[in-house]
Amino acid sequence: MPDVSSSSQAPIDAERLQEMMEAVSTFGGGPDGSMTRLTLSQEDGMARDWLGRWFSANGFEQAIDAIGNQFGKMTLAGANAPVVMVGSHIDSQPNGGRFDGAFGVVAACEAILAVSERLKAENRLSACNFQVVNWTNEEGARFQPSLLGSSVFSGAAELDWALDRRDGDGISVRESLDAIGYAGTDKVAIPDALIELHVEGSSTLEDAGEKFGIFTGFWGATKYRLAFLGLQAHTGPTPMAIRKDALLAAAYLIGDLKQIAGEHGLDLHTSVGRLEVYPNSPNVVPAEAVLFIELRSGSPEILAEAERKLKARIEEAALKAGVGFEVRSIDRRKAGTFARGLIELAERAAAGRGETARHLATIGGHDAVAMSGVCPSVVIAVPSRDGVIHHPTEYTSPEDQAFGTQVLADMLYRIACEGLQEVERSEAVA
Amino acid sequence: MPDVSSSSQAPIDAERLQEMMEAVSTFGGGPDGSMTRLTLSQEDGMARDWLGRWFSANGFEQAIDAIGNQFGKMTLAGANAPVVMVGSHIDSQPNGGRFDGAFGVVAACEAILAVSERLKAENRLSACNFQVVNWTNEEGARFQPSLLGSSVFSGAAELDWALDRRDGDGISVRESLDAIGYAGTDKVAIPDALIELHVEGSSTLEDAGEKFGIFTGFWGATKYRLAFLGLQAHTGPTPMAIRKDALLAAAYLIGDLKQIAGEHGLDLHTSVGRLEVYPNSPNVVPAEAVLFIELRSGSPEILAEAERKLKARIEEAALKAGVGFEVRSIDRRKAGTFARGLIELAERAAAGRGETARHLATIGGHDAVAMSGVCPSVVIAVPSRDGVIHHPTEYTSPEDQAFGTQVLADMLYRIACEGLQEVERSEAVA
Repeated sequence: MPDVSSSSQAPIDAERLQEMMEAVSTFGGGPDGSMTRLTLSQEDGMARDWLGRWFSANGFEQAIDAIGNQFGKMTLAGANAPVVMVGSHIDSQPNGGRFDGAFGVVAACEAILAVSERLKAENRLSACNFQVVNWTNEEGARFQPSLLGSSVFSGAAELDWALDRRDGDGISVRESLDAIGYAGTDKVAIPDALIELHVEGSSTLEDAGEKFGIFTGFWGATKYRLAFLGLQAHTGPTPMAIRKDALLAAAYLIGDLKQIAGEHGLDLHTSVGRLEVYPNSPNVVPAEAVLFIELRSGSPEILAEAERKLKARIEEAALKAGVGFEVRSIDRRKAGTFARGLIELAERAAAGRGETARHLATIGGHDAVAMSGVCPSVVIAVPSRDGVIHHPTEYTSPEDQAFGTQVLADMLYRIACEGLQEVERSEAVA
Repeated sequence: MPDVSSSSQAPIDAERLQEMMEAVSTFGGGPDGSMTRLTLSQEDGMARDWLGRWFSANGFEQAIDAIGNQFGKMTLAGANAPVVMVGSHIDSQPNGGRFDGAFGVVAACEAILAVSERLKAENRLSACNFQVVNWTNEEGARFQPSLLGSSVFSGAAELDWALDRRDGDGISVRESLDAIGYAGTDKVAIPDALIELHVEGSSTLEDAGEKFGIFTGFWGATKYRLAFLGLQAHTGPTPMAIRKDALLAAAYLIGDLKQIAGEHGLDLHTSVGRLEVYPNSPNVVPAEAVLFIELRSGSPEILAEAERKLKARIEEAALKAGVGFEVRSIDRRKAGTFARGLIELAERAAAGRGETARHLATIGGHDAVAMSGVCPSVVIAVPSRDGVIHHPTEYTSPEDQAFGTQVLADMLYRIACEGLQEVERSEAVA
């Protein structure tokens, strides 16, 4: 086994990384730091085109699969060598930030390029190939559910079902892929490992004055799309007593959800982030209110208990407002843990750069969560200023970006030199 | 003074009335009885064009003013004779019904035509001229406030301000008028009286088994457009305790508004018919929630008391959810009464056809409410099945339509024969 000392590891190019971050931020970026690059929008299409050109210019071979996931493969070993996939997503929330997702894709490009350059300079063969990934619709802002591309890729969601998802304007994923030219036909295999670098999206690292973290586990989530069904009527003459106001039921339940979270301290997060009111006219009693409800917990027991409470409160709210209801969909994501071998590899890489690697639990979904069911996966993290995410003030300094990307490159370089199974075996016995 | 016996009054043509109702319902009508003819939409433009052609074919002279109000004048007397304006509005709610408004315009056309035909058959001169009116944006569904066209016409609203109102897509009234060719330049004078025939929109007449009613007064309304201002964040990692959820504050207030109504029995109606949530993404804590709040009462004291309560509850809801708020606009419409002379004329006309004329108070706004400040005005009413309004099942039978239109024609015929002042004077001393 070749010796891999810290000094011989693959140094990244921090300037090149920043140039890529600036380039990708031009697609959908506003002057105030905001980013609106909804999945499969024109802006997303332009960012994908830019990434494809970068792949082509830097020796990566592009592939697009049927759900539009965009891959760029760097072949450094034989065709049958293991594949390590690295990446995140380029789509954003409406009026979101620039770092959530896009940083992980750009960092993957830079880290793989740095490893490739180093191996060539050393005239060393790689034990594996690398593949950048940009997943379709991680955010779930335009189409629901979130993690759509990685869920189809991992087999957790059916392709046709995913293609038939529609946005608020009734446009399907299928139509949107066609519109921007990303309805691909390439078949891409499940990789042998997946590593995602992401901004923390919370302030644990910043509060601790630390530069690097590892998501060792992930919270579960239960998501309801619920419609209260009332009766459309004039807000003027219609007597209060006979109104069937769907929005009133929604209001009762939104208050109840906040209360349910309070009953479980820090262990349960609840939210209604989206509410659709129909017909939504100032002088019409709402006939329909559709709530997008989320329950999140690291504990399967608390998540189940919260769902029981939710169901009871839905019935109470409907009864109190005199309306009906209909559960339109339920999505469940189980809590779990990431791959121990990859966690230990990340710890060692951070230590090699003189930093600790704080263990975190991810509450928000990541594509690596969807992938963790089919291959060893992990998410590593750099600090978010003030813990802000999904907002224009979301920010990670160039220095923190470079540090995280360097740790990622060090991880990849070690795998390239020692082989994935060797790394995991040596970590496991360490 | 010529004798006007019941037998000599102007008989309407019920078939012609139904043909017009069917014709106007083709513009924006759905197969289920629904009507979506938002003001100044393409459908509204086509309905206006149809009405203009009808005016032209039946001897009415069309005029369009700067806010797009559409008039059709039937000249039966000298140029300086008094003008009696009759009509309502052709715009509808989204997914509303066919009778609210459109029936009043069609009935005005038929009634004036019937009077004109009768006067010609009798070779009798008229004491006044008649003018059909189709007011712009009565509904307030697309642009707020409601009663926009009649408010500009009566001088209660500034023309430029009204033209600058924008819909949810940012399109202004000015642009919409241009788009359908109804940015008019005609000057139309305040009439000497205004009569509006409308469907009741409540079930008082139906419950009493009666065919005809008169709105003798109108409720006041106070309308707030209120924004709660929170902080956009990820619904996953963001700790519950630091969230500033604008939708949660909205939910608290919507519940409170229902409670405030309950504290005033039948004398206060409250509602939130429209709620805009921003950015309205399933996994983003809402940064902004804009509520369209209405308080309505026949009592100025109760309305003022309800507004005091509303203000206190807004502050409480903001405090409880940890968000800010901003009152974006307040519209106030005072409660009042309609013209006594016209009420008595309507009572006598109904009696002449063997029916009572139940006195009602209108809670929903009508253009006649906006006009009542500048000329004698009244709203007369025919039954609504099950009291339904602003819904596809809104319905008034052809027989009830014909009866109301006949009473209207009888009122107009009496004014034509006796003169408006004579009618009002004789009623006042009766």
